[in-house]
Amino acid sequence: MIEKLIAQIQKKNAPVVVGLDPSLRFIPAGIQQAAFAQYGETLEGAAEAVWQFNRQIIDAVCDLIPAVKPQIAMYEQFGIPGLQAFVRTIDYCRSKGLLVIGDVKRGDIGSTSAAYAAAHLGTVQVGSRSLPVFQEDFATVNPYLGTDGVQPFVDACAENDRGIFVLVKTSNPSSGEFQDQILSDGCPLYEHVARKVDEWGAGLRRGGYSEVGCVIGATYPEMGRRLRGVMKHSYILVPGYGAQGGTAEGLRPYFNEDGLGAIVNSSRGIIAAWKQEKYARFGEAHFAEASREAVQDMLSDIRSIL
Amino acid sequence: MIEKLIAQIQKKNAPVVVGLDPSLRFIPAGIQQAAFAQYGETLEGAAEAVWQFNRQIIDAVCDLIPAVKPQIAMYEQFGIPGLQAFVRTIDYCRSKGLLVIGDVKRGDIGSTSAAYAAAHLGTVQVGSRSLPVFQEDFATVNPYLGTDGVQPFVDACAENDRGIFVLVKTSNPSSGEFQDQILSDGCPLYEHVARKVDEWGAGLRRGGYSEVGCVIGATYPEMGRRLRGVMKHSYILVPGYGAQGGTAEGLRPYFNEDGLGAIVNSSRGIIAAWKQEKYARFGEAHFAEASREAVQDMLSDIRSIL
Repeated sequence: MIEKLIAQIQKKNAPVVVGLDPSLRFIPAGIQQAAFAQYGETLEGAAEAVWQFNRQIIDAVCDLIPAVKPQIAMYEQFGIPGLQAFVRTIDYCRSKGLLVIGDVKRGDIGSTSAAYAAAHLGTVQVGSRSLPVFQEDFATVNPYLGTDGVQPFVDACAENDRGIFVLVKTSNPSSGEFQDQILSDGCPLYEHVARKVDEWGAGLRRGGYSEVGCVIGATYPEMGRRLRGVMKHSYILVPGYGAQGGTAEGLRPYFNEDGLGAIVNSSRGIIAAWKQEKYARFGEAHFAEASREAVQDMLSDIRSIL
Repeated sequence: MIEKLIAQIQKKNAPVVVGLDPSLRFIPAGIQQAAFAQYGETLEGAAEAVWQFNRQIIDAVCDLIPAVKPQIAMYEQFGIPGLQAFVRTIDYCRSKGLLVIGDVKRGDIGSTSAAYAAAHLGTVQVGSRSLPVFQEDFATVNPYLGTDGVQPFVDACAENDRGIFVLVKTSNPSSGEFQDQILSDGCPLYEHVARKVDEWGAGLRRGGYSEVGCVIGATYPEMGRRLRGVMKHSYILVPGYGAQGGTAEGLRPYFNEDGLGAIVNSSRGIIAAWKQEKYARFGEAHFAEASREAVQDMLSDIRSIL
């Protein structure tokens, strides 16, 4: 799957992913009101607003980008209807030729991780049939439980031509609390995790890169530089650009000399562009056009450092 | 919520929770066939089998135990129908007076954790209404992202009278890979996490215990002893008893001198009891009675060390 992602990145000259994290506060009042008129102020109403919002953004940006990254929490918060909107969003993105990175951050003991891996990256066995479930192309994975919690995801990648991005150094302010702790060999915990990511992915290299990638926040470029060297064959999914404070200049160390090796996410910066001063002229009704221009601006910004 | 849990533990003299982790291989063929006859070999069929299986086990054991712990992965693997069975299971357990620990192991950056916390421990705002979603009483939380990833769950506990159990030292074989790493102060990572758990929960003590508990696997009694001292006010949710190798004798250090402070989970050991030699006489048709006897045996075993 990493080869398909790279091919799409190259075709569109766009090492960029749009995070579909539709908090209701990003969704124009008109869309919410129409959804509530139909379904009431219910979970179904919220899910309908999310879906209508996503659909218009996907339509507006799909030719510019290789992939989207729906954050499942933003759907799970609306219960079953929300998760139905998650499924619908994935299906729609696939129909538009976009690759889908499920930002699920799952991770558990082996048998449980296997169930998550089946749900998100494989098929589940029901009687004599193998059934697809959520059908993402990639998923994010939490490594805190160690190899036996991650291996089922790696196995699912191998069996189903899928990929994962393992959390190594996250973009949030307190990520350092545990991740930056210096271990007895003088290296921080995140570097130990990075070495494991390199190991986990060693058997899954397709061309120059592995199906096992990692997550490193844009807010920590020095760590990005160091970790780039530890995991030469891992694609880095980089959150934290834009709204969380990461800049294009700071992204340079995440890329390899081949101009590949990283894909940069922006969520709020794209989907809530219409709420920014910079794109205010579009107005609420043209929020999706604001998102398109925000993607174009992000592409110009990131292409400038490659 | 921790006070309600303690009250139920004391009333039933049962520091025990049954893990509702219904892998299809634990579900008698008769139940699966009936579900498939109605819904086909589909996700709906699997979810129906899960629900029928759970319902019978809940009926058989609900008077003996204070709480259940459904593992959401086992439902999520069957997609939307599976998650509907998760909701139905929670609602049914609540109607039987059982407390529900959602074993969701969620954890993300702040704004995303807030969405998970709303979904599992609070309410979500839709227009002018605050709506409940999954309605667990407790949830498990992954700490890898640090305080700003955990705090929204702590806040949800405070606002909604709920509780959490933060992963400190998990029961799986490779939990030590990262969790046992010795940091520069000579203490392992899990102990740093434990100290944070104590901090996070300091403002949420209700009687002697905090709404912020932790998870420590039964398979590591020495660590249990040490961590018990670090987090005096945290309830310990202890997985790994039985099937994963933990013994009652090994559980002693997890309890405080007041006989409280820990609640021991068994999943496979109870719900798949009918597949064990020891309970084979019940036969497939009486699987729920086998589960009841397995709970009674577990209770005798654990009461013997208190």
